[in-house]
Amino acid sequence: MKTTPIDETHGAALRSWVESAHAPGTDFPIQNLPFGVFRTSGTESNRIGVAIGEFVLDLRACLERSLLTGMPTRILAACGESTLNALMACPDIERRALRHRLSHLLRAEGAQVTAKPHAAEVLVPQREARMALPARISDYTDFYASIDHATNVGSMMRPDNPLLPNYKWVPIGYHGRSSSIVVSGTPVRRPSGQIDPSAAGQPPHFEPSKLLDYELEMGIFIAEGNELGTPVPVTEAGAKIFGLCLLNDWSARDIQKWEYQPLGPFLSKNFATSISPWVVTAEALAPFRVAAFHRPEGDPAPLPHLKSAQDQALGGFDLNLEVSLSTRAMRSHGHAPVRLSRSNVASLYWTPAQMIAHHTSGGCNLNPGDLLGTGTVSGKTKESRGCLLELTMRGKDRLALPGGETRAFLEDGDEITFTASCEREGFARIGFGECRGVVIG
Amino acid sequence: MKTTPIDETHGAALRSWVESAHAPGTDFPIQNLPFGVFRTSGTESNRIGVAIGEFVLDLRACLERSLLTGMPTRILAACGESTLNALMACPDIERRALRHRLSHLLRAEGAQVTAKPHAAEVLVPQREARMALPARISDYTDFYASIDHATNVGSMMRPDNPLLPNYKWVPIGYHGRSSSIVVSGTPVRRPSGQIDPSAAGQPPHFEPSKLLDYELEMGIFIAEGNELGTPVPVTEAGAKIFGLCLLNDWSARDIQKWEYQPLGPFLSKNFATSISPWVVTAEALAPFRVAAFHRPEGDPAPLPHLKSAQDQALGGFDLNLEVSLSTRAMRSHGHAPVRLSRSNVASLYWTPAQMIAHHTSGGCNLNPGDLLGTGTVSGKTKESRGCLLELTMRGKDRLALPGGETRAFLEDGDEITFTASCEREGFARIGFGECRGVVIG
Repeated sequence: MKTTPIDETHGAALRSWVESAHAPGTDFPIQNLPFGVFRTSGTESNRIGVAIGEFVLDLRACLERSLLTGMPTRILAACGESTLNALMACPDIERRALRHRLSHLLRAEGAQVTAKPHAAEVLVPQREARMALPARISDYTDFYASIDHATNVGSMMRPDNPLLPNYKWVPIGYHGRSSSIVVSGTPVRRPSGQIDPSAAGQPPHFEPSKLLDYELEMGIFIAEGNELGTPVPVTEAGAKIFGLCLLNDWSARDIQKWEYQPLGPFLSKNFATSISPWVVTAEALAPFRVAAFHRPEGDPAPLPHLKSAQDQALGGFDLNLEVSLSTRAMRSHGHAPVRLSRSNVASLYWTPAQMIAHHTSGGCNLNPGDLLGTGTVSGKTKESRGCLLELTMRGKDRLALPGGETRAFLEDGDEITFTASCEREGFARIGFGECRGVVIG
Repeated sequence: MKTTPIDETHGAALRSWVESAHAPGTDFPIQNLPFGVFRTSGTESNRIGVAIGEFVLDLRACLERSLLTGMPTRILAACGESTLNALMACPDIERRALRHRLSHLLRAEGAQVTAKPHAAEVLVPQREARMALPARISDYTDFYASIDHATNVGSMMRPDNPLLPNYKWVPIGYHGRSSSIVVSGTPVRRPSGQIDPSAAGQPPHFEPSKLLDYELEMGIFIAEGNELGTPVPVTEAGAKIFGLCLLNDWSARDIQKWEYQPLGPFLSKNFATSISPWVVTAEALAPFRVAAFHRPEGDPAPLPHLKSAQDQALGGFDLNLEVSLSTRAMRSHGHAPVRLSRSNVASLYWTPAQMIAHHTSGGCNLNPGDLLGTGTVSGKTKESRGCLLELTMRGKDRLALPGGETRAFLEDGDEITFTASCEREGFARIGFGECRGVVIG
């Protein structure tokens, strides 16, 4: 597996002339440089931007001021687009060149080219930027890569045999709906659907879902894809990752239970999927690569087409996730959001490279801008369960909230927020912004 | 449900100045006028065309010769595009106006505007046209609407209880892969994948599928879609159908068996889906609308959101399907393709309008150019089983072929061809062309 090198753009000592890039706890220091798509009241169409501190660096404005001169032709064209697809399609060596240029444009000292004299024209305050979906997502696939999630969910259905026999062999995934992927901040309407008859012989009802849930996931954007009929070897699959974002796979558990046999989830998932607007690149994440999940004694080794020494060594991401809830009553009484769980992407049974190698192993083609979800990222402890189904054991253990409320599943007005960050001694902390959605009736 | 009116464009007496439009057995009389996308060695990019006899009417050439003057602005713009998406997005009243104009351009007598003097510039022989996918398909959903198919497949797994309890309530469907949809004629590469361990305790193998199959389906292209969060009532769902094509949902049964629990088929289906290039419009199919499937005594009525009197009366399509096989040996010995089965879309348990109403009932948005598959169209008799899994009872009853060959599943060099047609006393027969694919190793 090709892994992105750690280089001077990751240096902890690197400083930006944008002061808020050094604010304690900022998600967007100069070592991050995530891409997104935004517009303001003053711009006519969507533009590509890079988050830096509390600002967005406007790439079209950079182009207009010749700040990207010298970049490869494809990169120059891609930076003027209104989605990230063309940038995602550029070869990784060219994307790395762009990262270096952006780092220089924003650094306080030693820049080959600086954007500082143009600050007023190329920086937009994030509070004035309306974020859009980062890419035109043609195909969206959702995996099921957390063995703890699969075990927790399976144990509710099959207490003696929670994991199906294929789980440790196959990176289980299914096709999702791309049209209903929305950007963070978009309200999510509670779906109606057919609900399982509660007593045998009773007909199903069509009514609003009562068991609405979130699922804490990461999204993986594909860079260069592959031709139909040409699988991507696992040794090359890591290089197909453009970057990561947060992903909320909203799920209606009652609809899911009644519909999912024999062809899998459908309406229980396709009413909305939320993603965070900033895509943190594989380059930015280079310092946070860790070993793949260590399979315990007795687990089978991955089949040869899913196994590589480098993926074993560096295929994982040490990436902390957190989910919080704020109810309407909590907000009106001034209570802060309450944290529901924390987990880490390194706990996934399958790496992103294994997901990509598996996805293409029968010949299926991936395209730049395609999105893969990891599946709910849960850990071994109760505090690390990535959805309410697991946290409340299908609603049996209601959560106590500030102000005396309780929750089994989501109620109208509930707002769910995901955040994520990477931390490592000797490196700047980088964050993902947030993925937020409020449930409306 | 809005149904398209039968009007003078359907008249059996209508004749075209294109003589091959009257050849016995032609799929493309003047009453059909299906849309497709093509290019020739002389055209630089894909263009929209309309099949007429052995020719394609080139709509860009018609635009250039002012033959579409007077059409609505959106229609004029859409006819110059290189996919059908913009045309699909036009209101049905405008699309109907275009159908009338095309009918006039091609009719032998009584035309308000005729293309005849421009024949040499606007007609392209079909043998010189290279067909492309008719639309940019953002999302593809496959249903499972044939109760005979569901029963046959279910009986192999659960002889005592072939149909799952949700089948008669829920139009079961799942999301498919849009990137690997290919146009008829594209060879289909046999996928490799993980194959179920044959004996308990044996690890799975990664190897070429041995149980490669076709599935005989119709594809439904969506016209105007709906906004996220806004379901389409079943009474309006019929008007969302732009047109129909043939669809081969190639399936690797051995991969499917091992991977499909708990989230449904994935690699067993996403290596290729073939569709026919010509989209026969809802307008052309107006004379062939029939009652929805008659549910036998004891079956539940559809829930209110899936039921409408008009859909009951005219929601079905009387559309005959046929599948044939030609092996490499058959071709080299001069044997004609052999017919494997015949079935009819009217036998589906769920109508296309019910599929659309169900799909959007939780708020999921459909877009122009989205594709729905009906699922394998099988009937009650052995001769009407729409895939080899059913025809050979999972390979037990091998098919005898001309020249002494037999088949349980598809072998390399096997070519599968689907055709379809509508016939009704007093109306011209219309056809769908073909959906063809050869298996390569």
